[in-house]
Amino acid sequence: MSKGRILIVGLGPGPDKWLTPEASEALMVATDVIGYIPYVERLPDRQGQTKHATDNRVEIDRARHALDLAQQGHVVAVVSGGDPGVFAMAAAVFEAVDAGSDADRATDIQVLPGISAMQAAAARLGAPLGHDFCAISLSDNLKPWDVIIRRLKAAAEGDFVIALYNPASKTRPQPIHDAFALLRSLKKPSTPVAFARAVGRPDERILLTTLGEADPATADMSTLVMIGSSETRFIERTGQEPWLYTPRHYGVGL
Amino acid sequence: MSKGRILIVGLGPGPDKWLTPEASEALMVATDVIGYIPYVERLPDRQGQTKHATDNRVEIDRARHALDLAQQGHVVAVVSGGDPGVFAMAAAVFEAVDAGSDADRATDIQVLPGISAMQAAAARLGAPLGHDFCAISLSDNLKPWDVIIRRLKAAAEGDFVIALYNPASKTRPQPIHDAFALLRSLKKPSTPVAFARAVGRPDERILLTTLGEADPATADMSTLVMIGSSETRFIERTGQEPWLYTPRHYGVGL
Repeated sequence: MSKGRILIVGLGPGPDKWLTPEASEALMVATDVIGYIPYVERLPDRQGQTKHATDNRVEIDRARHALDLAQQGHVVAVVSGGDPGVFAMAAAVFEAVDAGSDADRATDIQVLPGISAMQAAAARLGAPLGHDFCAISLSDNLKPWDVIIRRLKAAAEGDFVIALYNPASKTRPQPIHDAFALLRSLKKPSTPVAFARAVGRPDERILLTTLGEADPATADMSTLVMIGSSETRFIERTGQEPWLYTPRHYGVGL
Repeated sequence: MSKGRILIVGLGPGPDKWLTPEASEALMVATDVIGYIPYVERLPDRQGQTKHATDNRVEIDRARHALDLAQQGHVVAVVSGGDPGVFAMAAAVFEAVDAGSDADRATDIQVLPGISAMQAAAARLGAPLGHDFCAISLSDNLKPWDVIIRRLKAAAEGDFVIALYNPASKTRPQPIHDAFALLRSLKKPSTPVAFARAVGRPDERILLTTLGEADPATADMSTLVMIGSSETRFIERTGQEPWLYTPRHYGVGL
């Protein structure tokens, strides 16, 4: 029996301070690293370790490649930015297992969690996720747009704080505009909104605004968009950016 | 001006492998550590560092204490299990700031994210959070139960994967029973359910079942309850616990 295995590793949002010891260890022991080009390139070269960097939107090919290598005895790190379990490679690997063979189902697979973009954004902004929230990917590459609409409506109906992943890309600029148009019809214009881009990285950029005043074009593929519940509020501070937080209480004041 | 500050630190679910380097560093430099007894007791004693362990449900007192110490020049680590931004101490600290003075608003505060319980559970189970999801706390200590009902209904309406925090406690055993009764009226009996207790700790216990067959009494205060969307599925394996995952696709098969 092969001693190969797959470690699905969360790299976190970027800086080493957010990389768990478990993930660091996995990157040391892996014979092969598989992932999207920018994530793989971010990692230092290691002797005896082969890097397989591939383009976006080939997640299933990557997963299949990882299973094949593991079955040949390799220790394969499949890397994702953030948490691999949140809109990332873990689901793709299990899709490949589900569609695969008995050998795939018998493969030793371990998922190593990481700090996800919404958590880094929340920490940077204050505590916007301090109460019930939901996370929605605006990418309609793999799901019909009407499912996204249904979920945005439900998120507004439930008065959840909303974390939007994949709000826009160069080839797909429209979703965030459509999402904001819908949310503006369902939530107050004064609802706090944050565009948190590349949090923790040198090109970090934060913009705090409201649903009524936000320009959806602010979001790019590196942006996490946070939209408040009816309770989410700013704390104004002299000479500094306001804090953004959601109280643990609901509808009962402070 | 004081050089005191507050570091709101996420300890993750328990094991050191999930404690970020940033959080480790904060625990080293802090002159004071404030938090709920079991979290504070878990930390090693350090020379020159004072531990202030308090009981549950006094979060605002803890936050006020941290602000006072920081304003006296202390470096205060306010610790939470998991991620302090998710149903934990970060929101409490900002509530205290919001209700506080100009000195409170001028206090240097930094939030250090951590791996939250739903992420550890997801990693342990497979990839149940691989698609849109929401996180709901079933504690009605601070919010009316009808808000929880409204959010559970919306979560079902939106077909989100649902992560339930604080499903039950000794003094509050009922919420998870009421939540399951409601969800059973809204979702299919075959919907996958996982009870993930104390993931990563020696007393970890995992139970995989379905909404129709689940016994809500399985959940205690250390349990994260995961309820699938209509797409969430098990992958059966010979001689091993099934994987649980949610495909990135929606309604289009594999």
